[in-house]
Amino acid sequence: MKKVGVAILGLGVVGGGTYKILKEHRELYQKSHKIDIVVEAVLERNRDKAVALGIEAEKIAANIQEICSNPDVDIVVEVMGGVEPAKTFVLDCLRAGKSVVTSNKELFCKYNHELEVAAKKNHCGLFYEASCVGGVPVIRALLDNLQGNKILSMMGIINGTTNYILTKMASEGAAYEDVLKEAQKLGYAEANPSSDVEGYDATYKLSILSSLAFHTKIPYTKIYREGITGISVKDIEYGKKFGYVLKLLAIGKNGDNGIEVRVHPSFIKNSHPLASVNDSYNAVYITGDCVEDVMLYGRGAGALPTGSAIVGDIIYCATHTNYQYSTFKNTEDAAPTTKFIENFESAYYIRLNATDRPGVLAKITSIFAKCRISVAQMSQEREPENEDTVPLIFITHITHENNVNKAVKLINEGEDVAKVAAVIRVVS
Amino acid sequence: MKKVGVAILGLGVVGGGTYKILKEHRELYQKSHKIDIVVEAVLERNRDKAVALGIEAEKIAANIQEICSNPDVDIVVEVMGGVEPAKTFVLDCLRAGKSVVTSNKELFCKYNHELEVAAKKNHCGLFYEASCVGGVPVIRALLDNLQGNKILSMMGIINGTTNYILTKMASEGAAYEDVLKEAQKLGYAEANPSSDVEGYDATYKLSILSSLAFHTKIPYTKIYREGITGISVKDIEYGKKFGYVLKLLAIGKNGDNGIEVRVHPSFIKNSHPLASVNDSYNAVYITGDCVEDVMLYGRGAGALPTGSAIVGDIIYCATHTNYQYSTFKNTEDAAPTTKFIENFESAYYIRLNATDRPGVLAKITSIFAKCRISVAQMSQEREPENEDTVPLIFITHITHENNVNKAVKLINEGEDVAKVAAVIRVVS
Repeated sequence: MKKVGVAILGLGVVGGGTYKILKEHRELYQKSHKIDIVVEAVLERNRDKAVALGIEAEKIAANIQEICSNPDVDIVVEVMGGVEPAKTFVLDCLRAGKSVVTSNKELFCKYNHELEVAAKKNHCGLFYEASCVGGVPVIRALLDNLQGNKILSMMGIINGTTNYILTKMASEGAAYEDVLKEAQKLGYAEANPSSDVEGYDATYKLSILSSLAFHTKIPYTKIYREGITGISVKDIEYGKKFGYVLKLLAIGKNGDNGIEVRVHPSFIKNSHPLASVNDSYNAVYITGDCVEDVMLYGRGAGALPTGSAIVGDIIYCATHTNYQYSTFKNTEDAAPTTKFIENFESAYYIRLNATDRPGVLAKITSIFAKCRISVAQMSQEREPENEDTVPLIFITHITHENNVNKAVKLINEGEDVAKVAAVIRVVS
Repeated sequence: MKKVGVAILGLGVVGGGTYKILKEHRELYQKSHKIDIVVEAVLERNRDKAVALGIEAEKIAANIQEICSNPDVDIVVEVMGGVEPAKTFVLDCLRAGKSVVTSNKELFCKYNHELEVAAKKNHCGLFYEASCVGGVPVIRALLDNLQGNKILSMMGIINGTTNYILTKMASEGAAYEDVLKEAQKLGYAEANPSSDVEGYDATYKLSILSSLAFHTKIPYTKIYREGITGISVKDIEYGKKFGYVLKLLAIGKNGDNGIEVRVHPSFIKNSHPLASVNDSYNAVYITGDCVEDVMLYGRGAGALPTGSAIVGDIIYCATHTNYQYSTFKNTEDAAPTTKFIENFESAYYIRLNATDRPGVLAKITSIFAKCRISVAQMSQEREPENEDTVPLIFITHITHENNVNKAVKLINEGEDVAKVAAVIRVVS
């Protein structure tokens, strides 16, 4: 039986989960794939973590060189996260002829070109299914299944932490700060949550996914990014009245005029399949010109779901010999011909705190008209605790981002008539 | 640029769709994959279909030999359906060294072993993503992404025709026969609908999917099958009151005691992700021991969605050189060690027409008790049009299939107290 030696760099949540899966399923893979996968080495600064997993002392490497020079290691699993030293280690391994399986979205998003060049040069495999949306099989779907399509758009709930927080805010009417604290206690959010709640994590993933979908490199720096830290539970409640659910959506569109990529809080109709993706579940909704709509749904994070993606890649790597690399032109930067749309089109939810006196509505709507914003729905709410102003909510028809920015500026700069309290894009 | 010659066997809905996709996307594939895919030949009895698609006369083959001996053909797409002559043609092509991409679930389900042996022997690829659930990327997910898991269960809505009919019956309160006629008019159901409505189509697909998931051949003959022809709209309505939606589910379970595989109408809770898969959409809900729950959703049929899966396979075949075959032991029959569970466990919805007099309920519940059936919910309905009997509906706790069969027999054979009008499994 073919022996496959694996080394794991980093024994955090995902590294530990991967180790457990490989250990507990060894016989399963012997039976199902006629391969014997053995963890031959681990690299982990915190030796206690390795000991707690029951890893023999002689398998705990002192440094990356020990792994690179270990002839029993065929595949290296990088689950350290962050750019350095992960990048140096991965390049070292590839140069030593080891194939690499990584879950590191930040590393792969920022340096996929350099890593793929090194992998190709050294005839190694480089696999990254676990880098996006955990156990959900979205990378391979884009790389293989959907290649016959021109992908027109993708919309994803691709960050579990923010989806957990937004789901809780909606179901319990709780404030952002309170739910965040609870999520941190439960381990759903990190002590420093900014990568998740500010939307960075989602932009890394969207960069990888949209590059595959649109056959051109989409640098994460080109992605418009807005997190959920400014979200008031009030807007989630008001949105419900219009039939909307609030989600942090990662959106990529590939239209005739160019590509638009953005991560921001979004209202979607409660009948949309993404609307019922709750808690830490993730989903990607892809529209292709042939396949129409496809949705891939599952656990976007966690030790075992992400470990499932890693082990899937290990088995693929071990049972295939001609490694494929991303078939799109994976250049370091976007192709000069790629046109990015920044002034994108959307419908908008706009909440204002308006002075409760005649003529206010006329002034606001005249600003909207001036900015070419057409109002689809309007609602005047009552806030008993606030006597000076009334909340006015507008849902606009599709308009340009710049029009809305201009209107917000005009309203806020105007006489003391109304202040814009929230602007949330409405996506369909 | 690498040229890839394709031949298409059969220009029905899917064959025509595949031809159109290849023709319209030729430039896209040149750019994205550096391959030039050209349809070099078609085989179609009805010459008019080829002419209508604008296919040049010299590309219309007179017989399969012309395709087998055509040096410009690298990949043959078999979209004829049915076992013969498709099987002979596919084997001819493989023996001539052509790789084959097929959407033929019946052929692949019944003869995958023979076909894979021939493909392997002749160093050809054999791809069948399009055979199950159209454009939904489920085969590759099972073959590649989820291989690290022991798959515990799968539940699928994998037949578009029956899902369309059941959705319409539920939303319009219309009778099965009326909706079937409408579906036939719209092209959602065939003139002879038995393969769909009797559940054969779903058993072919479940055979393929569960064989991949459970790493052992699951012959379709081992699958319990029950179609939707006996479904009364009354039961769909009553089920709604209990919070259930009726779907034709294909279910595979891989438990400690053995494997169970079945296709039958099923009530599921309206909060289950499968409950909102409507019309001709399909979805497969897979539970693995690592990945937890994954759902893959999309168009399960149609010219372009199924064509999308076929073209995905063509591109994969053209860009990979070491073809993989199903990695499970794809024997002709189930392994002798595979234990199939026939007396499976489920909860049940049982509707009886009972005489409206004292003591009837006691008699029925005593039969249930005798058969070890524990009642979870009971409801007595009113049917104004029927004065002699009242509908009694029971939802049972989990019990064995045989217990229910025994109870139904005892009730129906008993004095003129009640007759069982419907038995529908409740799945969770």
